Amino acid sequence: LASAVAQGMVRVPTHLVSTICDDRGEEPTYNGVSMSELIEGDYGIGDVISLLWFKRKLPKYATKFMEMCIMMCADHGPCVSGAHNSIVTARAGKDIVSCLVSGLLTIGPRFGGAIDDAARLFKAACDKGQEPAAFVEELKKKGVRVSGIGHRIKSKDNRDKRVELMQNYAKENFPSTRYLSYAVAVEEYTLQKSSNLVLNVDGCIGALFLDLLSSSGCFTEKEATQIVEIGYLNALFVVARSIGLVGHALDQKRLAQPLYRHPWEDVLYME
Amino acid sequence: LASAVAQGMVRVPTHLVSTICDDRGEEPTYNGVSMSELIEGDYGIGDVISLLWFKRKLPKYATKFMEMCIMMCADHGPCVSGAHNSIVTARAGKDIVSCLVSGLLTIGPRFGGAIDDAARLFKAACDKGQEPAAFVEELKKKGVRVSGIGHRIKSKDNRDKRVELMQNYAKENFPSTRYLSYAVAVEEYTLQKSSNLVLNVDGCIGALFLDLLSSSGCFTEKEATQIVEIGYLNALFVVARSIGLVGHALDQKRLAQPLYRHPWEDVLYME
Amino acid sequence: LASAVAQGMVRVPTHLVSTICDDRGEEPTYNGVSMSELIEGDYGIGDVISLLWFKRKLPKYATKFMEMCIMMCADHGPCVSGAHNSIVTARAGKDIVSCLVSGLLTIGPRFGGAIDDAARLFKAACDKGQEPAAFVEELKKKGVRVSGIGHRIKSKDNRDKRVELMQNYAKENFPSTRYLSYAVAVEEYTLQKSSNLVLNVDGCIGALFLDLLSSSGCFTEKEATQIVEIGYLNALFVVARSIGLVGHALDQKRLAQPLYRHPWEDVLYME
Amino acid sequence: LASAVAQGMVRVPTHLVSTICDDRGEEPTYNGVSMSELIEGDYGIGDVISLLWFKRKLPKYATKFMEMCIMMCADHGPCVSGAHNSIVTARAGKDIVSCLVSGLLTIGPRFGGAIDDAARLFKAACDKGQEPAAFVEELKKKGVRVSGIGHRIKSKDNRDKRVELMQNYAKENFPSTRYLSYAVAVEEYTLQKSSNLVLNVDGCIGALFLDLLSSSGCFTEKEATQIVEIGYLNALFVVARSIGLVGHALDQKRLAQPLYRHPWEDVLYME
Ligand SMILES: CC(C)(COP(=O)(O)OP(=O)(O)OC[C@H]1O[C@@H](n2cnc3c(N)ncnc32)[C@H](O)[C@@H]1OP(=O)(O)O)[C@@H](O)C(=O)NCCC(=O)NCCS
Ligand SMILES: CC(C)(COP(=O)(O)OP(=O)(O)OC[C@H]1O[C@@H](n2cnc3c(N)ncnc32)[C@H](O)[C@@H]1OP(=O)(O)O)[C@@H](O)C(=O)NCCC(=O)NCCS
Ligand SMILES: CC(C)(COP(=O)(O)OP(=O)(O)OC[C@H]1O[C@@H](n2cnc3c(N)ncnc32)[C@H](O)[C@@H]1OP(=O)(O)O)[C@@H](O)C(=O)NCCC(=O)NCCS
Ligand SMILES: CC(C)(COP(=O)(O)OP(=O)(O)OC[C@H]1O[C@@H](n2cnc3c(N)ncnc32)[C@H](O)[C@@H]1OP(=O)(O)O)[C@@H](O)C(=O)NCCC(=O)NCCS
Repeated sequence: LASAVAQGMVRVPTHLVSTICDDRGEEPTYNGVSMSELIEGDYGIGDVISLLWFKRKLPKYATKFMEMCIMMCADHGPCVSGAHNSIVTARAGKDIVSCLVSGLLTIGPRFGGAIDDAARLFKAACDKGQEPAAFVEELKKKGVRVSGIGHRIKSKDNRDKRVELMQNYAKENFPSTRYLSYAVAVEEYTLQKSSNLVLNVDGCIGALFLDLLSSSGCFTEKEATQIVEIGYLNALFVVARSIGLVGHALDQKRLAQPLYRHPWEDVLYME
Repeated sequence: LASAVAQGMVRVPTHLVSTICDDRGEEPTYNGVSMSELIEGDYGIGDVISLLWFKRKLPKYATKFMEMCIMMCADHGPCVSGAHNSIVTARAGKDIVSCLVSGLLTIGPRFGGAIDDAARLFKAACDKGQEPAAFVEELKKKGVRVSGIGHRIKSKDNRDKRVELMQNYAKENFPSTRYLSYAVAVEEYTLQKSSNLVLNVDGCIGALFLDLLSSSGCFTEKEATQIVEIGYLNALFVVARSIGLVGHALDQKRLAQPLYRHPWEDVLYME
Repeated sequence: LASAVAQGMVRVPTHLVSTICDDRGEEPTYNGVSMSELIEGDYGIGDVISLLWFKRKLPKYATKFMEMCIMMCADHGPCVSGAHNSIVTARAGKDIVSCLVSGLLTIGPRFGGAIDDAARLFKAACDKGQEPAAFVEELKKKGVRVSGIGHRIKSKDNRDKRVELMQNYAKENFPSTRYLSYAVAVEEYTLQKSSNLVLNVDGCIGALFLDLLSSSGCFTEKEATQIVEIGYLNALFVVARSIGLVGHALDQKRLAQPLYRHPWEDVLYME
Repeated sequence: LASAVAQGMVRVPTHLVSTICDDRGEEPTYNGVSMSELIEGDYGIGDVISLLWFKRKLPKYATKFMEMCIMMCADHGPCVSGAHNSIVTARAGKDIVSCLVSGLLTIGPRFGGAIDDAARLFKAACDKGQEPAAFVEELKKKGVRVSGIGHRIKSKDNRDKRVELMQNYAKENFPSTRYLSYAVAVEEYTLQKSSNLVLNVDGCIGALFLDLLSSSGCFTEKEATQIVEIGYLNALFVVARSIGLVGHALDQKRLAQPLYRHPWEDVLYME
């Protein structure tokens, strides 16, 4: 077919379009950057993500921030939904991919998947200059929770260290932390309502990505909007947590744990 | 391309081969049987499976048996691995497909997925006329468990009703239950070792499928062997349990259950 | 713990609630119906779904309709997204569960998953007595597609036989087909716009389920609304198509097809 | 319950054991290392993997090697099974997790998942001092392919650059490359049989990991054996490729590609 097409004998429209990676030449390239360049140059995993997701090279502070997010979101103990499902699957004797995937599928609005929603809400509100209090109350009236706010365990007096570390990094390295400031103002307001309505990891990453998109000078306003709309940011959590989910699955296999069965006594059977 | 090919202008080998379903004509057909025929004739879900998996129409007692298996394997409470993971995923607020899939991925050697292995073992042993005791001891020496034998909860004096019902049906309707008899003889032997080493649902379905393959007159010996080797039988459990997993996910959504977090007290944190 | 709780020594709230299936007694029960009753009585797969999903026994015409939906949605050829992904996974040498699941994950708004959305739209519009034309134009103004309308291949003059068969069955057996009539009126209007804007399988099942929910006398208005909101109906497609996806995976294994690689010539590599 | 247990009122054995991550204290710790230490110290993503998977800190050349593997395995174009399935799922309008997962499920014996098998084979053969030729011929006689050898596209004269880069890095930085030398000797032999029987990425990573396990001084022989048996190494490919699969899904969403349907002309419909 290739040669028939080349000779102009037939014209078939292709059925797929792809723009991030080219594997046809001597070496595969990620958005035009070859493997050799990646390895020989001063590239890291954050750069690979920049090239494959954002299709551009980002400044060092930005790729370092992404790597920090990955490191800090890599795991959060065996009790959260994702790790729990990966553990149960590992104990059922399944392969690593199945274990990982069974856990990944719990990532969503309530677990790890609030980054994009948080970014969407903070962007819309901050861009139109809405007061934090008005923002929270408007959502409340609609019966919608503020994404990026709230934690099952953490609270005002038992802050999530990861959130703190990210904030410090950004304050030192980002050109601007305008959106983060907005998110913190929102948190101040929600903490008056209940002590566990803290800015959570999702909310913090969401706000800081907005700062990155708007102040790095690498994205047009339109591109930033599209990235937030499509939802690139949860994906970062997903890739990060893959490391932990695999870790939990390997852990169970190493410990040779038997088939898990949830204890009957822990279930309330109702009509 | 289609017309270019039709006119003989180009010859491209196709990249896919498919044999079970044709959707190109007026009506889709399952192994040659049209939708209208399916609905207007006396066909049921068991027949659809026969056509799409086994590529032939099977006698009524066989399709009825498959439907019975589906009905009896549809669910087994919220505590087993599969239901548990679907429940956790539903409580994380995910869509029905994600909930179902997170549970399905636990199906394997230790949970619901021993049917094919049981069939393989029973077939090999029975076909060469090995004594049940010798069969069990040989596996023990290899450090391999007898698939289809054993249950976490059920035991000699607390039999699995589902196994009983299947056996009765087969005895009344199958031309032969030679493999089932072999499996029961194995169970008699293992029960002497421990009272929970009963013939489980997987083992019973495995043995009865062997009887169906060998005595229905619909399969050559070679076809039967290939079916057992490839492993069609776990798939029956998988389709059946899909009904229950979806049921559990819907149940949690109806009950509006919040995010699940496994209780810390139930975890032993070790080095 | 069980006995400690029984003796009133400790009070721990349970962490899980479950209402569809009880596996603690002599026999598992589906919403109170025992395995023996299921097998010995005149129950079928449709009844099992009624019990586990809707938590009630439904009339024969309703369970038969569900079985019909399953039969007709079981497969639709190797070219649709779901079958394609299952085929590719099978050719990568993966187990049946992985093949099935890789295909299931394509089910959603554009493929097979429009039933619930169609039901939601038709219910809202029909219940408030909106004209079909007004309904279509309102959605168009919002930039939203009419779920349940449109097909890549089928058209006015090449109707989907499955839709026709379902309609006929419902007209003969359902107490009322008020919602179906509404959906057909919508189709009449959209067909004036383009000949492929037919009522598709998803739309037809969606409308007929609304008729079932409202005219069977088994559901209160509140229950019907909750079922449509939560979205039970896509799940029926999901369970049905599981049969076909497994069929395609087995097919590839039987044919011993090698690793699939999409042909380079079929991809447009762009910047 | 926690306090009841603490007061010694009840003794319930826990149902889960976990050893890699502790989220109960002030800060989550990965195998004892706190978040603050991770961020403030000179840790990277490779270190996080060391801690969560291998439960120890590894030397810089080892974590750097793992990061290199991740960078080089992150993507390999849109045509391979995994990317293809993620693309199809994205075009079906599904969320990023579903897209990622649908692609991940293709990873296995034929695609990306041969690293552990390669390591197992090379370790067994090299440890017992088997000649490369004897090793290849023995597998051939058993009808088993040499994992880590062979490529659909690459060949003797069109080497995979990634393999070359890894080899160079290891030769410069690893204490020993004994297993790699063995794998290269195997390749020399298989290349005589056919020019596409090159050492592929999987084989190269497998061999180099063996070198790392045996010469880094961080693992006992027993630990190394267990790691190879359980299969940690494919997991590295899995985490790496997650980046690319997500990239492809985002790419399709950015391009707003419609539902994919495989072209009919590309399918050979057979009986
Ligand atoms: C994270 C979360 C699931 C934890 O929830 P939880 O501790 O179980 O809290 P509950 O659901 O029991 O809610 C307790 C109260 O706080 C309120 N609340 C919780 N999170 C809220 C939020 N983000 N915005 C507004 N109110 C919130 C609830 O409405 C509830 O109020 P009520 O008792 O008057 O109904 C929850 O805070 C949430 O949904 N947050 C938004 C999504 C998010 O950021 N998720 C990522 C977390 S890593
Ligand atoms: C179903 C199953 C996981 C239940 O296991 P369990 O109750 O947790 O049993 P344990 O793993 O604690 O085993 C208890 C003892 O019985 C033995 N045993 C359990 N199942 C056995 C089997 N199928 N064959 C031989 N011995 C078996 C174990 O080796 C163990 O002996 P040990 O104490 O001397 O080491 C187990 O019986 C099994 O693996 N069966 C085979 C696979 C199968 O049929 N699965 C489908 C079940 S629906
Ligand atoms: C099924 C479906 C994906 C097929 O789409 P398709 O043939 O590829 O159609 P296209 O996306 O190329 O659309 C062609 C035109 O018809 C319009 N159209 C397609 N489906 C429409 C619908 N359901 N409602 C309104 N307009 C529709 C499109 O907007 C487009 O108009 P334009 O050219 O003016 O922009 C599409 O009809 C759809 O999204 N339907 C709704 C969801 C649904 O029911 N899915 C289940 C199908 S089994
Ligand atoms: C990668 C792979 C799937 C590519 O296969 P392919 O190019 O489609 O090759 P084919 O399956 O058409 O095989 C062509 C011939 O080479 C032989 N061959 C291919 N790979 C072989 C291997 N690893 N060891 C021995 N022989 C091999 C085949 O047996 C066949 O010989 P035959 O024509 O005499 O039957 C294949 O080489 C393989 O299975 N390798 C081992 C697994 C592996 O390393 N996978 C990871 C790849 S990234």
